[in-house]
Amino acid sequence: MLKIEVRRKPIIIGVMGGHEAPVEILEEARRIGEEIAKRGLVILTGGGDGVMKAASEGASRAGGLVLAVLPSDRVRPLAGYPNEFVDIAICTGMADARNAINAKTPHIIIAIDGGWGTVSEIAHAVRCDTPVIGLKTPFIDLPQARCLIACDTVEDALAQMDRLIKVIGGQRPAAGEMQ
Amino acid sequence: MLKIEVRRKPIIIGVMGGHEAPVEILEEARRIGEEIAKRGLVILTGGGDGVMKAASEGASRAGGLVLAVLPSDRVRPLAGYPNEFVDIAICTGMADARNAINAKTPHIIIAIDGGWGTVSEIAHAVRCDTPVIGLKTPFIDLPQARCLIACDTVEDALAQMDRLIKVIGGQRPAAGEMQ
Amino acid sequence: MLKIEVRRKPIIIGVMGGHEAPVEILEEARRIGEEIAKRGLVILTGGGDGVMKAASEGASRAGGLVLAVLPSDRVRPLAGYPNEFVDIAICTGMADARNAINAKTPHIIIAIDGGWGTVSEIAHAVRCDTPVIGLKTPFIDLPQARCLIACDTVEDALAQMDRLIKVIGGQRPAAGEMQ
Amino acid sequence: MLKIEVRRKPIIIGVMGGHEAPVEILEEARRIGEEIAKRGLVILTGGGDGVMKAASEGASRAGGLVLAVLPSDRVRPLAGYPNEFVDIAICTGMADARNAINAKTPHIIIAIDGGWGTVSEIAHAVRCDTPVIGLKTPFIDLPQARCLIACDTVEDALAQMDRLIKVIGGQRPAAGEMQ
Repeated sequence: MLKIEVRRKPIIIGVMGGHEAPVEILEEARRIGEEIAKRGLVILTGGGDGVMKAASEGASRAGGLVLAVLPSDRVRPLAGYPNEFVDIAICTGMADARNAINAKTPHIIIAIDGGWGTVSEIAHAVRCDTPVIGLKTPFIDLPQARCLIACDTVEDALAQMDRLIKVIGGQRPAAGEMQ
Repeated sequence: MLKIEVRRKPIIIGVMGGHEAPVEILEEARRIGEEIAKRGLVILTGGGDGVMKAASEGASRAGGLVLAVLPSDRVRPLAGYPNEFVDIAICTGMADARNAINAKTPHIIIAIDGGWGTVSEIAHAVRCDTPVIGLKTPFIDLPQARCLIACDTVEDALAQMDRLIKVIGGQRPAAGEMQ
Repeated sequence: MLKIEVRRKPIIIGVMGGHEAPVEILEEARRIGEEIAKRGLVILTGGGDGVMKAASEGASRAGGLVLAVLPSDRVRPLAGYPNEFVDIAICTGMADARNAINAKTPHIIIAIDGGWGTVSEIAHAVRCDTPVIGLKTPFIDLPQARCLIACDTVEDALAQMDRLIKVIGGQRPAAGEMQ
Repeated sequence: MLKIEVRRKPIIIGVMGGHEAPVEILEEARRIGEEIAKRGLVILTGGGDGVMKAASEGASRAGGLVLAVLPSDRVRPLAGYPNEFVDIAICTGMADARNAINAKTPHIIIAIDGGWGTVSEIAHAVRCDTPVIGLKTPFIDLPQARCLIACDTVEDALAQMDRLIKVIGGQRPAAGEMQ
């Protein structure tokens, strides 16, 4: 498939997660990427290995457009970035400071498993009101965690995503509309 | 037109320029945007008014996908960003520091007219070996300006772009291949 | 006191925390800032209100140099930044993306209380091996949290800081030396 | 000299220039660094070799505090950064995107010789109203270059700096006050 069909002003779903993960987590990331593409949504990841690559593969094989915000640039490449499924690579050359962009750009984020990089992205996302659906993500104990939705299964995560998309109707939800 | 056809791993053409410009410059930007889309390439701008908006309008009306790397984010929006023709907005919240991303991401840049923001993007681009085609851009006197190509007409700029695309064949040119 | 004495290549202690905090937390932040300055160390904060201001006040009144990495710049100022005790303000204009700089620059970080901004800074710090002493900080459940040291009192936090400074002897600790 | 005396809220002078330069340029950079320190001002550079190192050396030997905003961080160091005269290194890990911080932070910038990195810093500086004194810098042809002051000698550059400091009196000049 050499051409991709993309909606004008598509909803962007960020999928965040570590560059290493157990095989069953990778399979879940792939399924989530696939479902994102099947709904005509655009996926955005950090562009690396692990959860990022698996979700991108799922989306790409299902005919979706795959965006990535890289920590690297072309003059100073970084091993594993971008993975082979990335269509459009935003080259920042900013290392971890690009995590804030990963958090600000998507309309909705699904965080899967993940380590400290993912924690930083969840934290940046909450700060800028991007709703975060967490699938087996690190637990963070903050009372004001109103825009974090914890899920245990892919089906739950997708149901939450579908619900949020209806709420936002192509717009971003206001903070109060998310729960 | 509600759907856009995009190639897998498309070549990205950055169009840089000021948020204000004379009407004849805006018309040239529109034509360049249109020709980018007609060739199946993807346009990337800074997402604002002026040259950025005109080039995005040209690309969008010709059926192309329009990317933008915004200085703002959704929590702290900035008047005029993104313009109405942007399909996918990368939200950085980084103000001018995002100019480096504008310079690193495209395979080729066309700089049209422009002020100090454009000068910063040209400078960042040369530093990371992104070839820059300048159409009536500010003059910068540096002997090592090997990857800057100055043009006087839209036709010249497009011919240079087509030539560079052949050289790179979907890959980025090495520094030595550009002239 | 109009002059400050600073060591050549001083050890920098980052103090991270929210722009709002209960009064007893602010008092603890002030005491920590004071002790940092009394030891001839330089304090670095995010430059805002709350914990950042209280710690800066403590350091400044004790004769220390106060650094801050601002989310704002002079052209687009942000209310409350920098607070009145900041001597040297690094102006990023990058909003939250500057949190990565807050995490990378200090030799040791003391995180006090705090919300999602502080969580992002802790996460960025762990990613770049900056040791973090947490005083009543948000709980983050990650098994690999080897460079996070949780404390309940100001005395404990200062004892951990003094211990780390001996280990590093003016150098940054390697990851394995911290515990 | 192991201790440095610094004024509270010191005026910061940015010295920008390339990591390579002819020996006579380096000597001029050293003299400028020395004069900055003798006046009790704080120097800020990009932290690397060439003009950055020479100016830092001059300031350090004259007893001044030397700041640097590095493109690198401690986990991913970059050869030559920071140079041996840097006292306080702000670690960004952001490569060239840190040039915007170099431009926004100082009260006044002296650009000496330099290549594309320096051009990007001059452009960012003008955009955020930081006055720039250019000593043998690249020529940039923009009519609105109101806050760029071109000089041919170290003495001229220092005289312009002294004049601007009087104008600002510890505050940053408004755009109209600079010429």
